Amino acid sequence: MATWFSRKPRRVEAPRLHSREEDQSTTRVDLVEFTPPLLEFLGRAAYVQLSLFEDLSRAVATAPTVAAKASIGRAAELAITKHRALADEITRAGSTPAAAMEPYTAVIDNFQRITHGDDWHENLMTCYLTAGFLDEFFVRLAAGLPAESAKRVTAIYSTGIGEAVLTDELRAAIEASPRLASRMAMWGRRLVGDTMLVARSALHYTENHKSDESHIEPVFTELIASHTRRMDALGLTA
Amino acid sequence: MATWFSRKPRRVEAPRLHSREEDQSTTRVDLVEFTPPLLEFLGRAAYVQLSLFEDLSRAVATAPTVAAKASIGRAAELAITKHRALADEITRAGSTPAAAMEPYTAVIDNFQRITHGDDWHENLMTCYLTAGFLDEFFVRLAAGLPAESAKRVTAIYSTGIGEAVLTDELRAAIEASPRLASRMAMWGRRLVGDTMLVARSALHYTENHKSDESHIEPVFTELIASHTRRMDALGLTA
Repeated sequence: MATWFSRKPRRVEAPRLHSREEDQSTTRVDLVEFTPPLLEFLGRAAYVQLSLFEDLSRAVATAPTVAAKASIGRAAELAITKHRALADEITRAGSTPAAAMEPYTAVIDNFQRITHGDDWHENLMTCYLTAGFLDEFFVRLAAGLPAESAKRVTAIYSTGIGEAVLTDELRAAIEASPRLASRMAMWGRRLVGDTMLVARSALHYTENHKSDESHIEPVFTELIASHTRRMDALGLTA
Repeated sequence: MATWFSRKPRRVEAPRLHSREEDQSTTRVDLVEFTPPLLEFLGRAAYVQLSLFEDLSRAVATAPTVAAKASIGRAAELAITKHRALADEITRAGSTPAAAMEPYTAVIDNFQRITHGDDWHENLMTCYLTAGFLDEFFVRLAAGLPAESAKRVTAIYSTGIGEAVLTDELRAAIEASPRLASRMAMWGRRLVGDTMLVARSALHYTENHKSDESHIEPVFTELIASHTRRMDALGLTA
């Protein structure tokens, strides 16, 4: 697994993180210093949703039951609706969705390829974990956009990822098979590294903080905590 | 191609069809006599949209350009949104989407399989022609549902199928290749037969009109006219 910082938080980080939490009791730490220009943000975010949609719609098409098809269809709808809303923001910002997304297709297509999974359950696990991680990441990054855009973009993500339907399907399968549980736990651990890498590629560096990882680390610590919570919801150890 | 009546209208039909058009100048001929019970209608209609969504999302995933991905994503969104709205109607009517759709999966899965197409363009042509035909068919059939349901179901279909984005993609490809044009024209002609069969399987017969094809024929004549218009929009002969 690729990592660029220790997953165990260093002791020195704890007090600062704690005090930020006290200052901003209703907001979590964000990534405003690393937010890219609006169209870069939107192009990447819109293509990520399109990619998540593709994964989910494959899970719909290959679902083992009609009930699974119907419930995962809801999650696919949420992803494609977010994609389209972000595409509308691109149009509003004066570009076209295709032009704005194009520069990011190679990185995200590669991410999609390596997180593809070998079967339906791995594919669905990918949808659940990467959509959860990346949506939370992009919401934090959106905090640094111009105020009106930040507000609209945050609202786009407020529908969630259909977490309930995804966990229901996965948990039922995992509870029925200890062997699947073990494989899913491994798959989940592998996914988090690739997902962090693709998220990190969206960070915009200026000269001032080119090598300042200390501002990024608390955010990723929280994103990993959320990932752990998502694994817990399936009865798996992250 | 399978047919159950001559595609050339019999002379005797013409006057009646004409007078119906005069009587109902704002509505086209409908299928109220053949509308199935509410849950049968909804189960089938919801699964048809899920199937159309699967075809469209495959076209998104395998699209040759980012622009095509983005525009066909819009059509996929329309199908999955209709599916979900119809699934919500099933819940409202006291059943569950999976239970209501289950009896119709075999017929519709088979339809999906035989209309699959050999490549991206054939798949997209299938989406365009079968979604156009079946949406129009189900709207006419919905006219025979209880009034409040009929109203809500008709509203669900009012978003259309994303015809503009589908014709843009197909027309551009067809204009660029006479060979593709010829293949697409043949594919379109083949699709209409299978699509009429799957539509016909949704008709509900009572003893009174068990063999009365004369009430069905005018509707299918109009549905085929719409199909011809969709082929025309691509510069193809139906």
